[in-house]
Amino acid sequence: MEQAPPVITLTTDFGLTDPYVGLLKGALLKGCPFATLVDITHAVPTWNVLAAALSLHTSYRYFPVGTVHLVVVDPGVGSRRSILAAQGERQCFVCPDNGILSFLLAEGSIQAVHRVEEGGSTQNISPTFHGRDIMAPVAAALARGAGLETFGPALGLSSLELIDLPQPQSVNGGLRGQVLSVDHFGNVRTSLRAGKEFSNPCAFSAVEIKGHRISMIVASYSEAPVGDLLVLIDSSGFLEIAANQANAAALIGCGPGDLLTLEFLEK
Amino acid sequence: MEQAPPVITLTTDFGLTDPYVGLLKGALLKGCPFATLVDITHAVPTWNVLAAALSLHTSYRYFPVGTVHLVVVDPGVGSRRSILAAQGERQCFVCPDNGILSFLLAEGSIQAVHRVEEGGSTQNISPTFHGRDIMAPVAAALARGAGLETFGPALGLSSLELIDLPQPQSVNGGLRGQVLSVDHFGNVRTSLRAGKEFSNPCAFSAVEIKGHRISMIVASYSEAPVGDLLVLIDSSGFLEIAANQANAAALIGCGPGDLLTLEFLEK
Amino acid sequence: MEQAPPVITLTTDFGLTDPYVGLLKGALLKGCPFATLVDITHAVPTWNVLAAALSLHTSYRYFPVGTVHLVVVDPGVGSRRSILAAQGERQCFVCPDNGILSFLLAEGSIQAVHRVEEGGSTQNISPTFHGRDIMAPVAAALARGAGLETFGPALGLSSLELIDLPQPQSVNGGLRGQVLSVDHFGNVRTSLRAGKEFSNPCAFSAVEIKGHRISMIVASYSEAPVGDLLVLIDSSGFLEIAANQANAAALIGCGPGDLLTLEFLEK
Repeated sequence: MEQAPPVITLTTDFGLTDPYVGLLKGALLKGCPFATLVDITHAVPTWNVLAAALSLHTSYRYFPVGTVHLVVVDPGVGSRRSILAAQGERQCFVCPDNGILSFLLAEGSIQAVHRVEEGGSTQNISPTFHGRDIMAPVAAALARGAGLETFGPALGLSSLELIDLPQPQSVNGGLRGQVLSVDHFGNVRTSLRAGKEFSNPCAFSAVEIKGHRISMIVASYSEAPVGDLLVLIDSSGFLEIAANQANAAALIGCGPGDLLTLEFLEK
Repeated sequence: MEQAPPVITLTTDFGLTDPYVGLLKGALLKGCPFATLVDITHAVPTWNVLAAALSLHTSYRYFPVGTVHLVVVDPGVGSRRSILAAQGERQCFVCPDNGILSFLLAEGSIQAVHRVEEGGSTQNISPTFHGRDIMAPVAAALARGAGLETFGPALGLSSLELIDLPQPQSVNGGLRGQVLSVDHFGNVRTSLRAGKEFSNPCAFSAVEIKGHRISMIVASYSEAPVGDLLVLIDSSGFLEIAANQANAAALIGCGPGDLLTLEFLEK
Repeated sequence: MEQAPPVITLTTDFGLTDPYVGLLKGALLKGCPFATLVDITHAVPTWNVLAAALSLHTSYRYFPVGTVHLVVVDPGVGSRRSILAAQGERQCFVCPDNGILSFLLAEGSIQAVHRVEEGGSTQNISPTFHGRDIMAPVAAALARGAGLETFGPALGLSSLELIDLPQPQSVNGGLRGQVLSVDHFGNVRTSLRAGKEFSNPCAFSAVEIKGHRISMIVASYSEAPVGDLLVLIDSSGFLEIAANQANAAALIGCGPGDLLTLEFLEK
């Protein structure tokens, strides 16, 4: 049987209005003509490394073995920040060394990282578009089967840039977390994860956020009356505040950074 | 000659900001690594089954024989609504049983429908993302050639959920319809179809909508002066109100649900 | 070794809300099932041929030899304007004859152009969607290896429609150009190109635009303090006004058509 085409995913803050994503794909196909290209998102808020790190972390495990993930959120483009080629969980990752791998490093999912030396192709590198001119060719070479050592020297995992991940705080009878993001439906993802920041099955009675106390704890949206606020564990394991067929973030008036408290059941 | 890659299309209300569409594609490629994936739209208004049904109905016939259409607009996710695998017009369809197939059923384009039993893969099914965890694997299996009976028992077509399609009303000397949708250009799609609700070639003299009487009946936009309102039969057979290089919906101030009257020629 | 799949790119003003882009792709895959399809952008401002021409011009060179570029920005659809199949730089182009090829013609990158006769497939051509019903099938046939002469007669390059490209004007001690576009980051692309309208390496001291005089001339964003306005040569060779991790267009309050002056160094 014929071999399956390699998969390369793309995550950027480029938006879809300009041709930039298309240019990345042109470069990827020049380097790996048989690749299947998959957009994860190009709507990472501009220069927001935490959002890119979160998106990568909740996505990569759903892709086939051997997938290469290219993440270009790169406020330091043209500076001396390194570019990384990494391996872990039988997948590869290409991104700037700015903290994008923080969640994967924290959970021990990265096994090896090499720094990409620009040596090979310096002739035509724009100082403002390393995604197209350096990272995409590296991702394409990885998809064709190149080893990390092809691109430059190994780096110690402890030498990589990290971002501060929001830490939960114990409060009287509960746990304080914060809003990480709001999705297209208005569902509110929080920094609290089942099995990490709190045990699962959940032993909590309510969530308080901006004056709302939500005690409707369910497994799926449709268990709550239409329009009502609810709390559940989302499809990536995060505590989520949502509403059945309504926009929870708009109902509450909350956004990234807002605090919430998870109230534990009294024992 | 080598066999053509199977095509799987995606229609959702997920938007493109979050990684959800990427996750569907990861699941599809895990199940069918050779598939060519095509986005139809991810901008179905959230939880709007009628809009999803319309989009599918006007799109599927333009895809190759054997295409699998995955439609995830699923306000009832996690409830007891069924998931369907259907066949018709030499294509396949995977969607929740909530009316998405209504237009295809009404025109007799569906030949068989089976209910998807979740038995095989219950271990890792999120109650909030059946698109990723149930429907995408089913679509991938269909694209690899699995038969409908693989997934569960056959259902009678008359047992399926239907949505109410807007019905035209005869009025004095004409026909009353309504606005179904407004596209990116401001073109206004109505519920009246040439050869269905009225005969074609058109025997009407004007369209009235919100105080505008439009008697410029043309075959293509450029036949009208730039900026003028016009009426034509759109590329899917619907009566459309448009303007040459201008936004008709903004000129009229109309949107989905607004009524219009088609005035027939006197005989 | 197996042959690489042909690449077809898509550039339109269709947006991503409606199924129109999906319909183009269905038609492309019907005609060329092995094609790899790449979106360049579907956010060309509606009916804006200059923007489409610019997008194509800055994109095509980053795609593999043999790529077919389909550009559907077509305010004259259904009128007597021609449809073109063109060849140059070992790539192919399919678009309406409305000026989309202007930049490529100006730089001598087009070698041959044929007019597409609709003869072969008149049976099912919608007068409002030639992209789906004529241009996509032609692009698919080119991707399969058809020659331009398959579609219709050769045209003289001088007979093609052109758009007026913004011309720079010499002013006292400098050069006046204009804003062409603003990207997702707020970066401002101007009509002045390094090595074309002015010599490179740059011999200018500042840029004036709407009362702002910007003398921070750098190679990459990160050389300027965060938030500060700067000038550089962008990844396509255009003079760009930007800001480090901030939105330059918003800071200046400028948009397409606004004038700027490049001040040369005194010698």
